[in-house]
Amino acid sequence: VDYQHVQVPFEITLWIMLASLAKIGFHLYNKLPSVVPESCLLIFVGLIMGGIIYGLNDKSPPVMDSDIFFLYLLPPIVLDAGYFMPSRPFFENIGTILLYAVVGTIWNVFGIGFSLYGICQVKSFHLQDVSLLHNLLFGSLIAAVDPVAVLAVFEEIHVNEKLHILVFGESLLNDAVTVVLYKLFRSFCEMPAIKTMDVLAGVGKFFVVGIGGILVGLAFGMIAAFTTRFTKTIRVIEPLFVFLYSYLSYLTAEMFHLSGIVAIIACAMGMKRYVEANISLKSHTTIKYFMKMWSSVSDTLIFIFLGVSTIGENHEWNWPYIFFTVIFCLIWRALGVLVLTFFVNRFHVNTVTGKDQFIIAYGGLRGAICFSLVFLLPDFHRKKLFIAATTVVILFTVFVQGMTIRPLVDLLHVKKERESAPTVGEQIHIRFLDHLLAGIEDISGHWGQYYWKDKLEYFNSKYLQKFLLREYDQPKSSIVLLYEKLERKHAIELAEAGQLGHTPSQPSLLHSALPCSNSHRSVVTDGKSEDILNPDVLENIQEILARNLFRIRRTVPAYNRHTLPGETEPAEQAKEILILRHRSL
Amino acid sequence: VDYQHVQVPFEITLWIMLASLAKIGFHLYNKLPSVVPESCLLIFVGLIMGGIIYGLNDKSPPVMDSDIFFLYLLPPIVLDAGYFMPSRPFFENIGTILLYAVVGTIWNVFGIGFSLYGICQVKSFHLQDVSLLHNLLFGSLIAAVDPVAVLAVFEEIHVNEKLHILVFGESLLNDAVTVVLYKLFRSFCEMPAIKTMDVLAGVGKFFVVGIGGILVGLAFGMIAAFTTRFTKTIRVIEPLFVFLYSYLSYLTAEMFHLSGIVAIIACAMGMKRYVEANISLKSHTTIKYFMKMWSSVSDTLIFIFLGVSTIGENHEWNWPYIFFTVIFCLIWRALGVLVLTFFVNRFHVNTVTGKDQFIIAYGGLRGAICFSLVFLLPDFHRKKLFIAATTVVILFTVFVQGMTIRPLVDLLHVKKERESAPTVGEQIHIRFLDHLLAGIEDISGHWGQYYWKDKLEYFNSKYLQKFLLREYDQPKSSIVLLYEKLERKHAIELAEAGQLGHTPSQPSLLHSALPCSNSHRSVVTDGKSEDILNPDVLENIQEILARNLFRIRRTVPAYNRHTLPGETEPAEQAKEILILRHRSL
Repeated sequence: VDYQHVQVPFEITLWIMLASLAKIGFHLYNKLPSVVPESCLLIFVGLIMGGIIYGLNDKSPPVMDSDIFFLYLLPPIVLDAGYFMPSRPFFENIGTILLYAVVGTIWNVFGIGFSLYGICQVKSFHLQDVSLLHNLLFGSLIAAVDPVAVLAVFEEIHVNEKLHILVFGESLLNDAVTVVLYKLFRSFCEMPAIKTMDVLAGVGKFFVVGIGGILVGLAFGMIAAFTTRFTKTIRVIEPLFVFLYSYLSYLTAEMFHLSGIVAIIACAMGMKRYVEANISLKSHTTIKYFMKMWSSVSDTLIFIFLGVSTIGENHEWNWPYIFFTVIFCLIWRALGVLVLTFFVNRFHVNTVTGKDQFIIAYGGLRGAICFSLVFLLPDFHRKKLFIAATTVVILFTVFVQGMTIRPLVDLLHVKKERESAPTVGEQIHIRFLDHLLAGIEDISGHWGQYYWKDKLEYFNSKYLQKFLLREYDQPKSSIVLLYEKLERKHAIELAEAGQLGHTPSQPSLLHSALPCSNSHRSVVTDGKSEDILNPDVLENIQEILARNLFRIRRTVPAYNRHTLPGETEPAEQAKEILILRHRSL
Repeated sequence: VDYQHVQVPFEITLWIMLASLAKIGFHLYNKLPSVVPESCLLIFVGLIMGGIIYGLNDKSPPVMDSDIFFLYLLPPIVLDAGYFMPSRPFFENIGTILLYAVVGTIWNVFGIGFSLYGICQVKSFHLQDVSLLHNLLFGSLIAAVDPVAVLAVFEEIHVNEKLHILVFGESLLNDAVTVVLYKLFRSFCEMPAIKTMDVLAGVGKFFVVGIGGILVGLAFGMIAAFTTRFTKTIRVIEPLFVFLYSYLSYLTAEMFHLSGIVAIIACAMGMKRYVEANISLKSHTTIKYFMKMWSSVSDTLIFIFLGVSTIGENHEWNWPYIFFTVIFCLIWRALGVLVLTFFVNRFHVNTVTGKDQFIIAYGGLRGAICFSLVFLLPDFHRKKLFIAATTVVILFTVFVQGMTIRPLVDLLHVKKERESAPTVGEQIHIRFLDHLLAGIEDISGHWGQYYWKDKLEYFNSKYLQKFLLREYDQPKSSIVLLYEKLERKHAIELAEAGQLGHTPSQPSLLHSALPCSNSHRSVVTDGKSEDILNPDVLENIQEILARNLFRIRRTVPAYNRHTLPGETEPAEQAKEILILRHRSL
């Protein structure tokens, strides 16, 4: 046995396999995931596994490597979130989201940092050696709401679209603030003295990190869209570019100490509409499916690793500090949401209700990002205390808040996601109103969101589309596209119900075939049953085939690496089927 | 800039990006790939890049790591080959393929090894220090035909199915022989004396390595099929299992020194039909697409790395040895094919023609497997000579043979792949004859391939299907399935041509809408044009929608990580559409 040789890929594959099997396991019992969020179950699996490893080896199980987390596990989840982000509610609430993400996070960092420093002054807690800067550093890593944890819980409780995008958007965009503050305080900790200049430079960095991330992301997104203009001859590698370019945008942003999360979201949202217009339908399915699959696996791995890493001897259990950390996290978030929403509501007609505010405050889950950041701290004598406090906050928010939020949502009658999607009529009216408002804003000289949206659309159709789309000169009305799509779907359903073209329907065909071929039914050869040997059935089928079949069908195409089976000459086939059909009618 | 931090994933992504862009580049000029095989172009790109790296750094560019090749680049290609292997021609010719793969490869190894040893005895060549064992070791790595190179060339020349499967099958299955002989001679090289027992053990190993590989592969394939029985509730991770289990089968086989290639092929061929029956259509598309994409990228990377690794100072240019290596590779392969085919033709009605024999001999391309094996050799003073000889053989076969094989196929009028696939009638007859022959063999007591095939199918439908398929109790006749598929396709085409249900066709709708809305046409907002503001068109569309639409359509579904948009409640929609349709008719 040569295990050394295959160790790395073998263990990675086994971990992924374990994660996938755990997921299947939960879903086999439908009741379990409806009570306990999947994230809790996965952490629980991780805890058990960590316990087993700890018990067998008698030393702490391996901790999740921060590099692995930030370079390999986080990007798929953020890419998925950005690519499937509903853009309309996101941009409608962008102001509120940014306020929560930037001001709210800063508020939490300083609030938690200063009040924990206050706790450290109590002599009986033996914490006097934890300086203000260390407390602020700890605050900067514990303050940020975690997108992975938030997504995992909120996608199961189906709150209304606005509430969802507020919590979710905040958790994604606060990354820029976290990156800046965390790095700032970490460098301050190592400096002998802090000058005013350093603080000012820190403030300037906010804008560089955030806007830099957006620019890097958009640049890669545009290049990705441009690249897919030229993939018509090799459809097979189309999906690759979406993944490659968005990953490159993340890595590039990380390389320049910008916000990778912001970059990958900008990249995904920027390229989506152009890429989707350029690529084939099958490539599109592959992208969607693969993205979901990948983010799902990453997410599972993160929670399992969180559980595994919790077990061990990396902790210093100073209970007062830990207890007050949890309390302050809750209090400062609640206060922050209340104050910020007060200002938000003064400038908006569509206000954030009290119930919504409660859920926003309560939904501030912490997760793997804090956990990775705390392990990335430079070694100092109280690092294990911070690790312990972070672990407890994560477990508290994910287990207690994560498990009770669904009952609370039901109890408070929080407005849920509308079960019926907007009708076509509603959509037409919304769009009409958009144009109307853009016109009013234009006439009144007020540069509001509708004005800018209209300008952006103009710029898009005038310049960007020509450059980025392969067939930019045929803008089809989306209502026609919708109609086409519905007709196609309808046709499939008619065909499946056997209502098409007066041929015997498939179920009736099956039933008429079965009684007279019972004796042959048992042996199924290569997926083809022996029904066909019965002369009656054979005749029946032959007649149907003669009437409906395309001349010569290639059912087993030759092997070819670069093409997929069944993609050749649809036009010719369609023509012939139509001719045959007309003749028979 | 913190490049160190992101170096590994960044460079991997950039290499893949380069490979994909190179592929797009070639396909932009249609003429180039039709004259020069893509593999040659890619090696050429690699040579240029290697030259640049060499010129800039003044030291040899990095050589392709054998571990990376065998653990990460080779498996996707072999998986793709195994998964899309046409099983009927493969099993029909399995005897011939095995003869070529096992006996043919052994013949080549000893032929090349002994005759090169003869060359080494010529004093003026300064090669007397290369022992017989070293020559045999070199023979064992240079003798095997490379599946990656063969695939890359043969998929572009479209020879007939039998010829294709003979060359392709041989190149895949000879791996077991190569593994055994290579490891045997390598261990002999390090032994002080070789006993008869060691040689006998070597012979025994053939069977262990080959059959062991098959068993490992089949075991993982069955587990994979069994796992997909339970994925109905989370469709998203279905495709993952195909990749995970087949990769695990490869790694497990490698771990036990069995043939990984044989294992992964057995796994892919074994699980395919069960997995496909269990998973959803979209998962299936994702698997197919992703497999093609992945193998395509691996293949591209391998050829580029081959080119890059060629440049440098790893070579000892002893021209007589290199020249005779090329000559002996050609001669022994030609002789081997002639002799083996003579025996094959004596026992078969459907013989291998002279032209086919020539193409089989001429298509014996060497590639990256030899290259990786030669770098894996233990260090000894003539390793660089072997590297040089291997490099020249690979470049000669890929460039000279690869580029001339297409003109030769045309010149010799080698029977090509039939352009029209077998008709349904033909297929029914073939299947009928299969059953007839199985019956005849059963009565006459002759246990031929048809007898065993029939027994296997019986075992499959009686036991395996019940265990591995989710809905095993409803075996549908494949002719009914085909009919359903065709009806669905036909319906789509009818819908697209606007022939369905007496509604105005989409093109006519578009044309009638355009003249009266020219003024609105230019601004396309979010893919939805302003056509809809024109009252006439609006009325027209409303009428169509009212008649054809499902009650309320969800066009922008809410974000959810575990489901894909547009997969909900198709049954309900279908029902309602049918009701509406009936009412309107």
